[in-house]
Amino acid sequence: MTLTTTRALDELKQVSAELFDLGRIAELLEWDQETMMPPKGVPWRAEQLATLKGILHERLTAPRVGDLLKQVEDEGGQLSDVDAAIVREMRRAYDREVKLPAELVRELARATSEALATWRRARAEASFALFADDLARVVELKRQVAEHVGYRAEPYDALLDEYEPGMTAAELETMFANLRAETVALLDEIRRAPRQVDRSVFEREYDLDAQWRFGQEVLRWIGYDFEAGRQDKSTHPFCTHFGTGDVRITTRLHPRDLGQALFGSMHEGGHAMYEQGIGPSVQRSVIGSGVSLGVHESQSRLWENCVGRSRAFWEYALPRARELFPSQLADADVDTVWRAANKVEPSFIRVEADEVTYNLHIALRFEVERKILRREVETKDLPTLWNESMTQMLGITPANDAEGVLQDIHWASGLVGYFPTYSLGNLYAAQIWAAIGRDLPDRDARIAAGDFGPILAWLRDRIHQHGGTYLPADLIERATGERPNARYLSAYLRAKYAAVYGFAAS
Amino acid sequence: MTLTTTRALDELKQVSAELFDLGRIAELLEWDQETMMPPKGVPWRAEQLATLKGILHERLTAPRVGDLLKQVEDEGGQLSDVDAAIVREMRRAYDREVKLPAELVRELARATSEALATWRRARAEASFALFADDLARVVELKRQVAEHVGYRAEPYDALLDEYEPGMTAAELETMFANLRAETVALLDEIRRAPRQVDRSVFEREYDLDAQWRFGQEVLRWIGYDFEAGRQDKSTHPFCTHFGTGDVRITTRLHPRDLGQALFGSMHEGGHAMYEQGIGPSVQRSVIGSGVSLGVHESQSRLWENCVGRSRAFWEYALPRARELFPSQLADADVDTVWRAANKVEPSFIRVEADEVTYNLHIALRFEVERKILRREVETKDLPTLWNESMTQMLGITPANDAEGVLQDIHWASGLVGYFPTYSLGNLYAAQIWAAIGRDLPDRDARIAAGDFGPILAWLRDRIHQHGGTYLPADLIERATGERPNARYLSAYLRAKYAAVYGFAAS
Repeated sequence: MTLTTTRALDELKQVSAELFDLGRIAELLEWDQETMMPPKGVPWRAEQLATLKGILHERLTAPRVGDLLKQVEDEGGQLSDVDAAIVREMRRAYDREVKLPAELVRELARATSEALATWRRARAEASFALFADDLARVVELKRQVAEHVGYRAEPYDALLDEYEPGMTAAELETMFANLRAETVALLDEIRRAPRQVDRSVFEREYDLDAQWRFGQEVLRWIGYDFEAGRQDKSTHPFCTHFGTGDVRITTRLHPRDLGQALFGSMHEGGHAMYEQGIGPSVQRSVIGSGVSLGVHESQSRLWENCVGRSRAFWEYALPRARELFPSQLADADVDTVWRAANKVEPSFIRVEADEVTYNLHIALRFEVERKILRREVETKDLPTLWNESMTQMLGITPANDAEGVLQDIHWASGLVGYFPTYSLGNLYAAQIWAAIGRDLPDRDARIAAGDFGPILAWLRDRIHQHGGTYLPADLIERATGERPNARYLSAYLRAKYAAVYGFAAS
Repeated sequence: MTLTTTRALDELKQVSAELFDLGRIAELLEWDQETMMPPKGVPWRAEQLATLKGILHERLTAPRVGDLLKQVEDEGGQLSDVDAAIVREMRRAYDREVKLPAELVRELARATSEALATWRRARAEASFALFADDLARVVELKRQVAEHVGYRAEPYDALLDEYEPGMTAAELETMFANLRAETVALLDEIRRAPRQVDRSVFEREYDLDAQWRFGQEVLRWIGYDFEAGRQDKSTHPFCTHFGTGDVRITTRLHPRDLGQALFGSMHEGGHAMYEQGIGPSVQRSVIGSGVSLGVHESQSRLWENCVGRSRAFWEYALPRARELFPSQLADADVDTVWRAANKVEPSFIRVEADEVTYNLHIALRFEVERKILRREVETKDLPTLWNESMTQMLGITPANDAEGVLQDIHWASGLVGYFPTYSLGNLYAAQIWAAIGRDLPDRDARIAAGDFGPILAWLRDRIHQHGGTYLPADLIERATGERPNARYLSAYLRAKYAAVYGFAAS
């Protein structure tokens, strides 16, 4: 590399670090809005986010950045994996962002900040009508984003690409068609199974403070570092990070559901440990976070489901849970609690869905979002479409909008085209879980002994430390030895639910 | 005004709004660091603040801003008060900031963010040695700021001017000399007074949760809007604002001092109500906050001292306090509690000092800061200088650094030359309080009836709504009919303490 190119690379990395900082600052403003901000702060926060995101846009799309990228790309053949990835991600972000007018970026920041406040109110009152206008405004702006960014087949692709680079709506359509068919078949077997599962042990009266302590204790077991994070309460659980040293999670508690806060905490803890495990060589750069939403979700789902809903986990966790909840768990044995944690049952709330029906929730959102973007449905008619789809796919109909179309925060945040990454996460998680099983033959015995360290160490080594160095499919291949594929998810679900419900796995 | 000038003014106001937003964002990062952030977040937050303040600097000092200012100043004779003030403040900030290298601004942001974390640790361990290097770094950077900004007489002036425009160290020297002489005389009278005051009623065991609720209730009485703010706990109480709709305060609680959290809450509440009362015409601009630190402090001291430590206040507050603390206050009457709230006694902690000795605490800091900047003392020798000055001025010697040189957060934040504004605040507060007394002859009867609204309304009308439209001395004159002067503070202190201690006022 010539000296000029070395200097260009250094300057590019300086911009990359600054963009990382600005992105983290925006996340802090949003975290604060969800957890701490008083109600009258809304319009002020909206302006702050608009200003900040306007500046982020302006700095990323500065002509100087284009010149630097060109210089490095033309001459920089000998880059390390990390430097090459920084250049690749700067290029991707630059190409995407130069197509967006600054005013659209600011307007979207303002609109989503306000929509978040409206959504929270609408959800509390279970009234979609309150939220309809704000959502229409966000969707219209996202449509404009798609048009500016451009796409080959349909606007959905332009939005999806931001969350899972290279993925298309058409590919997802096939994936969901297969998942749906398999899910329907599996649900049928479960319905006809010799043993049925009783979830009532989870649905007793559980003291909220004790639940809170239990969740924090489990987070410590699995390796979440409270010196580099904190847990708070919010309407919708989430994880956010302001650098590797400050990765925060939130949860919500239900007085008659032990599972909600517990599995929610393990889920967000999984996301958080990914960010806490980003390696020093990629920190504070555009590749200094989880590589894609799909891979991110694989980490949360792995801890929530593969670990938290395993029989081995409850061998370890039940005695401790019984100390906190002696009367509620007096009569419960490991099998009862483990099966209860895995009861399959159509339900309204995605984040509380069992692993089998979960992907149907995502398939539904994928179809609804596509229809919105294609203008095949008007915003105001969304509750009707939602409820009809729920009835058709899951055989149940929400009683109100809070347990229907209003349940998720995503659209209010402008996250349209994001949901499918949840099913991709399940797919990756199953493949990773199988690989861990091969590398750690005593994996389940260790879990049963409360020794979660080797699993986290495996994930740190194969996934976390790399941040965005490798593209998702490449990272999964490096970690597991195979390109991502759905076979592991199918096998995992069949084997698990055969064991839970007592039917033959093959 | 020509069309070009109108457009230049509009653009300047756009920049002013954006600078306001960026300033508020920086405040949020700092608030979060003090109240919420986990320990390993420190280096990340430091980088975020450095990046953000670097951008703030860059945008304020853009050549375009200089051009716009010139254009408007050359032609803009017919500006409204508000527009003229925006131009005046942009000019002041621009002239100051163009003299500072961007790297110095970023370095100071980084250094203070780190010093804050170190100070908190050092204070907890009562060990100045832990903090000495961080402080030396901050002081050195502030010295560089003073050199870049420039000054006529001494470096102190360059720093002071940022907090109280136009004020000089020489003027303060005179003010403090007078205040010291009067204070010494008053202390002598108090020492010889026929009645001595017993503070023990405040020093019983007060439940922390009940104290917290009492503080919040008092804040509601006086008009702090919890819909536009929140209260949290922190090592050092402070007020910060992210726009008129989001003004937050913190407090700290002492299990054996009813006064600490109560008067601290009224103090920070006074600051907060100023920011909550900024009028729509100046909001979201460079004049959209309190005009100076001195005027800001007048608002906090007025509510803390003129209201909270008045006999009328305790006529109203004592019955309610007795409901929360029945055993502790069973034997206390209004006079006992009121006098206890006003006991004069040399003490170590500034924020807990009585109104008479308070200004000696400030005089001490003013002298120490001047010596630091003049290099008449080395950072490592500060504890010695501090303790000797305390002994000389107040006749008491701190037992450790936590109750001495480490007690205040200011230097860690880079606030050098800031403390004198506290005494200016006392001076303004007494003058304002006298004016309110003239305009509301039944002021004290209203306080005794819990009717604080007219006082807040007066302050909203005469002070708060204007934000930074008028310079401090002009604002005080508009509000009270007189230029700021120390006569009211002298008269107020003599009259009050004569009543408390039972000697003749004149």
